[in-house]
Formats: sequence, structure tokens, C-alpha cells
Amino acid sequence: MMVPPPPVDHLGTAGARRRGEVLMRAIFAAALEQLRDVGWRRLTMEGVAACAQTGKAALYRRWASKEDLIVAAIENTLPEPPGVPDLGGIRAELLWLMDRIHSIMYSPPGCALRAIMTEIEHEHAKVFHELVQRMVFDPSRAATAQVLRRGIARGEVRPDADIELLTDIGPAMLMYRAKVCGGEVPREYPTRLVDEALMPMLRP
Amino acid sequence: MMVPPPPVDHLGTAGARRRGEVLMRAIFAAALEQLRDVGWRRLTMEGVAACAQTGKAALYRRWASKEDLIVAAIENTLPEPPGVPDLGGIRAELLWLMDRIHSIMYSPPGCALRAIMTEIEHEHAKVFHELVQRMVFDPSRAATAQVLRRGIARGEVRPDADIELLTDIGPAMLMYRAKVCGGEVPREYPTRLVDEALMPMLRP
Repeated sequence: MMVPPPPVDHLGTAGARRRGEVLMRAIFAAALEQLRDVGWRRLTMEGVAACAQTGKAALYRRWASKEDLIVAAIENTLPEPPGVPDLGGIRAELLWLMDRIHSIMYSPPGCALRAIMTEIEHEHAKVFHELVQRMVFDPSRAATAQVLRRGIARGEVRPDADIELLTDIGPAMLMYRAKVCGGEVPREYPTRLVDEALMPMLRP
Repeated sequence: MMVPPPPVDHLGTAGARRRGEVLMRAIFAAALEQLRDVGWRRLTMEGVAACAQTGKAALYRRWASKEDLIVAAIENTLPEPPGVPDLGGIRAELLWLMDRIHSIMYSPPGCALRAIMTEIEHEHAKVFHELVQRMVFDPSRAATAQVLRRGIARGEVRPDADIELLTDIGPAMLMYRAKVCGGEVPREYPTRLVDEALMPMLRP
């Protein structure tokens, strides 16, 4: 990911400072880029400021530490899994959702999160664990439960399905593939997961 | 787990040294106990030696570092998932296997491994990742594949089942439950996994 080019200067003067939203976006993009390039431990507020073409003070005014900055960068850039649209059938909706979770995993903030988790000191891991839980796992589970309930209403899913357990399968398998098997989870893995595991499991 | 009491002195003299197998077992037990009590970072060769009631030299003679010692302790105490006996039906065999994986997770070396993984420095994590892969994930997958193939031969499992994918579900769900949901994975979880996820997924 590239840092976005300097924004158009609204005042038409070369010296005008970027403010608000535009500056924040530049800082968040710079923070994720620095994470990717130098990793968590070697990341500094100075490095992010330089990469965002702003001053260190602009960062410290908003965030007391690099941890606070990175949490904000991830919170503000991680795409939220939205409610799954009614696509008329369970298979299409599960595919839509698993593809979505897969894209979030490989979005810049998703990659940044995984990089942090492999490198961060034990003492600082908790805040990022909670972030993943709140912004990735919880919404993924809620969206899967919504799809399963819709499937039960349509008669496509056995009505006694253990929804709580089954909503874990997608995220669990994607996490296991990424962490245990290593390497990138292939683009076609979500489809395989839906057709070989989830669909057979849900059949009435 | 307690360190075993000093072994009976075969020579009948109070000063005789414990040797070979007996001393090794005492050292491995002490290493796992120290890991549990003080954690990875604060674990020292001196601490393990004291806990095993032996000298530091007895440790350094065999292992150059605490990393080498702990790898040896885990390798030598982690129960291997053996081939699953033919129990006459897929459900019984899957239950047997998932229970077995669950017990290994909560055996002293299994607990030690999980404790290390949350605490160890990034640079040293690789050797333990490989250990888990080699001693837990690979044999679990092989045993599950064996059970599934037996099930196909018996006509209990649909013959087009994606064995490679399905063998990941047990370990993936157990890891996800332990890591993401936190707390101990309940004793009844393996049964739920078999009855609510695996069995429905495998039906012809």
C-alpha cells in the first residue's frame, strides 16, 4: 500500500497545513505502511510522522504512544463486516461472507494486525487481542448467525443446528490456515470451506 | 504436577547419584513445573536444576540453553496421538480422537506449550511452532484422515468428502476455542464438535 499523495491544497497555498480527516487518513496509512515495512518493534512515532510528511507533535497531540496510534489506525481503517444482504439462498450468502472475512484478513489493517500479533511483547498483546475480537471475530460470528437463521427460516438449514458452534467454523478454519499452515490462505479457500464443510454440515 | 519424589537409591547409599532415565524424568518434570510457576521469561537453568534437586552442570552437560532443555522436556513428555483403534463406527472413533487431542492440550507439556506461545519472544517462537506442528497438528491430522478413510470404507462417510479440509476442523476448532474464546475448553466440547459439526458434515 502506498501513502496517498499529498492532498490537494484547498487554500491554494503551498504552505497550508492538512487538517482533520485528510491528515488523519495520511497518518493512518503511514502507520500501516511502517508496520509492514519495519514491523512493530522498530516502528517509531518519528518514523510514522516522517512517512506521513507531518511533525511528531501532530501525532503526540492525539496519541500518547505508538500502541494508541496503531490501535486508532486499525480501528479506523479495518472494514467492518456489514450485515449480509439477502441473496436468496444460504450458499450464496455464506460464500459472500467467507469471501468478505478473507478480504478483511488480507486488507492492509488485517495484515498489520497479523504482523503485530506475531511480534508484539506479551504485555502489550491484550489490547490487540481485544481489538481483533471486537472488530473481526464478534461481527463475523454475528453475521454468520444471521445467515444461518435466515437459512433455517427458508428450510435450507436443519432447524436443530448448533448455531453457536457452527458460527465459529469459518473464522476458526481461516485463522488455523493462516497461523498453522503458514503462507497466504488461497483465494479459493472460502469456496472450498463453504462447499466441503459448511453446506454438508447444515443440510436438513 | 509435582516433581516426583527422589527415586529409590539403587545402590543403597544416600550419596549415590540418580542417573540416566530417572534423572532425565526428574529434570523434565521440574522444567515443566517451573514453566507453569514462573513462565518462560523468568525460567532459568539454575531454577530447573534446584527444582530437580540436581546441579546446573547436569543440565548444561546435556542442553546448551533453556530453549534446548524445554524442547527436550516437551518432546519427551508430550503424549503422542497414536493410531485410533477400530471401534466399529465413525462416531466412536471421532469421539475417541477428539477427546485424546483435548487431553493432550491439557497435559502438563500441552499447557507448557500454550504458555510458551503466549509469552515467547518472536525470534524464538519458530522452534516451538515447529514442535507443535510436528508433535500435535501433523499426527492429529494423520489420525483423523485414518478414521475418515475407515468411515468411507464402511459406508458411513460420503466418499467424496474433502479429507484434507475436514481433518483440519477438529484441531482448528480446539485451537480457536482455546486462543480466541479464552478460558479452558470444556470437557464436553469434543463431543459437541463431533455430534454437531463433524458427523453432520460427513453423512453420505
